[in-house]
Amino acid sequence: MQLIDGKAISAQIKLEIAQEVENIVAAGGKRPHLAAVLVGHDGGSESYVAHKVKACEQCGFKSSLIRFDEDITEEELIAQIERLNNDDDVDGFIVQLPLPRHIKEQRVIESIDYRKDVDGFHPINVGRLSIGLPCFVSATPAGIMELLARYNIDTRGKHCVVLGRSNIVGKPIASLMMQKTNPGNATVTVCHSATPNIKEICRTADIIIAAMGSPGFVTADMVKQGAVVIDVGTTRVPNAESKNGWKLTGDVCFDEVAPLCSYITPVPGGVGPMTIVSLMRNTLLAGKKVIFDY
Amino acid sequence: MQLIDGKAISAQIKLEIAQEVENIVAAGGKRPHLAAVLVGHDGGSESYVAHKVKACEQCGFKSSLIRFDEDITEEELIAQIERLNNDDDVDGFIVQLPLPRHIKEQRVIESIDYRKDVDGFHPINVGRLSIGLPCFVSATPAGIMELLARYNIDTRGKHCVVLGRSNIVGKPIASLMMQKTNPGNATVTVCHSATPNIKEICRTADIIIAAMGSPGFVTADMVKQGAVVIDVGTTRVPNAESKNGWKLTGDVCFDEVAPLCSYITPVPGGVGPMTIVSLMRNTLLAGKKVIFDY
Repeated sequence: MQLIDGKAISAQIKLEIAQEVENIVAAGGKRPHLAAVLVGHDGGSESYVAHKVKACEQCGFKSSLIRFDEDITEEELIAQIERLNNDDDVDGFIVQLPLPRHIKEQRVIESIDYRKDVDGFHPINVGRLSIGLPCFVSATPAGIMELLARYNIDTRGKHCVVLGRSNIVGKPIASLMMQKTNPGNATVTVCHSATPNIKEICRTADIIIAAMGSPGFVTADMVKQGAVVIDVGTTRVPNAESKNGWKLTGDVCFDEVAPLCSYITPVPGGVGPMTIVSLMRNTLLAGKKVIFDY
Repeated sequence: MQLIDGKAISAQIKLEIAQEVENIVAAGGKRPHLAAVLVGHDGGSESYVAHKVKACEQCGFKSSLIRFDEDITEEELIAQIERLNNDDDVDGFIVQLPLPRHIKEQRVIESIDYRKDVDGFHPINVGRLSIGLPCFVSATPAGIMELLARYNIDTRGKHCVVLGRSNIVGKPIASLMMQKTNPGNATVTVCHSATPNIKEICRTADIIIAAMGSPGFVTADMVKQGAVVIDVGTTRVPNAESKNGWKLTGDVCFDEVAPLCSYITPVPGGVGPMTIVSLMRNTLLAGKKVIFDY
């Protein structure tokens, strides 16, 4: 069993990005600039955005944090997004979700210029991903593909079972894994809450990508000897022993499943660290203006 | 075994659409208007477009056929598309594919206003379909969903195996079948040219949607007793006995597979007739301006 070390890989990628940024700047190019829009003061969102700003520093990017009060109107927020769309200094930007209830998230997402949509949530990016065209791939699925690539995991013709059909993980990772690419080119099955025989299907999987948000869902009796298990779960489970009172818990019963696997990602330190790094990579691509015709 | 009669259903839907159009017009509304752009004189394309124009008549739509010579430049074609985008009388339009080699199809598709893209090929429509938002669903997958709905076929929690990962059938039908909708809500497996054990996977399927374009690919030994089989294949196979020298042939060995099925679509007369009808339905929706915020 080999542990997939997302923490080490993500640190390595940040170094690679920082090096490329320095080369760009040394050659007289522009330092990539990521802006983050944060509405209100949700604790989780504050912490995510702070991590992203810190990662920007590590990569040598310019970053801006743009804060709005909880009571900003949808119209005003969209007007601010228009401003970012038209600001040539901003290469890419994100709007941290969730937004307050009075704002329609989908409308806000669709108001972002897809060429600056480094979160990859705009329907144009989602559609281009499905079609197999260059696009901003959303961070978590992009991070998973990067881990598979860096560990040279053979996916061609393998049976990949995706647990969960969310728009930000399950569906896009299924799309990526079925494309005629490497990694990719897998036979893909998507299971979800309406699937009656998930255990049985998982037992046929060469690769399991668990993204249900259901702590400890994948048990040893669901995993074939030699399978690759990618755990996307990151649920905060109350834990008296931990400092902050909770423990980040994956969808996989790691201790019992790991001995069966050829490769497995731990939680934390597997897919999680790759997510921010994928956002950084998208920002680099946005800065280089290489994905779309601009 | 029940035969799914796409020909009868499509005739029925055309009547329903025609009735709705007459109601709209009687109430002072605008008659939906579909325009078709045809470049050059490819025999297949001429015939497809002629069928679409005829279906428009049957539905009570206004239709326009806009022809360009084979040597039109990409820029000029895109300028003409811009004209259609801005023509308030045109509710929806299609650009008949394939286009001549010197024209980049994807660039042309992306130049269509997605709100008039009744073929559903624009990345915004593809992305919205994946996300589960209202959109123009491309014709063949929409037709399959309509057949499943009209025959009240239970798809929830069923194992649906899709053969083929094309952008116009395999991928979108997989997306639709996994959505939390009815029909839909199925466990979906996508198989393709890199899948080593297609036979074995098919034998576990409650629903097989065959869209490989490989005549007679699905044989009796691949089909479970009671399965639903949807045959999307329409390959012209040389046939001396037929008037035109070929016979439209599906991906399924109908004679040997049909006795095993609970439901099966024939070729011709199954999915085929539904395809044009789905385009008509999209045109009606375009005319009613009900899918997007306009």
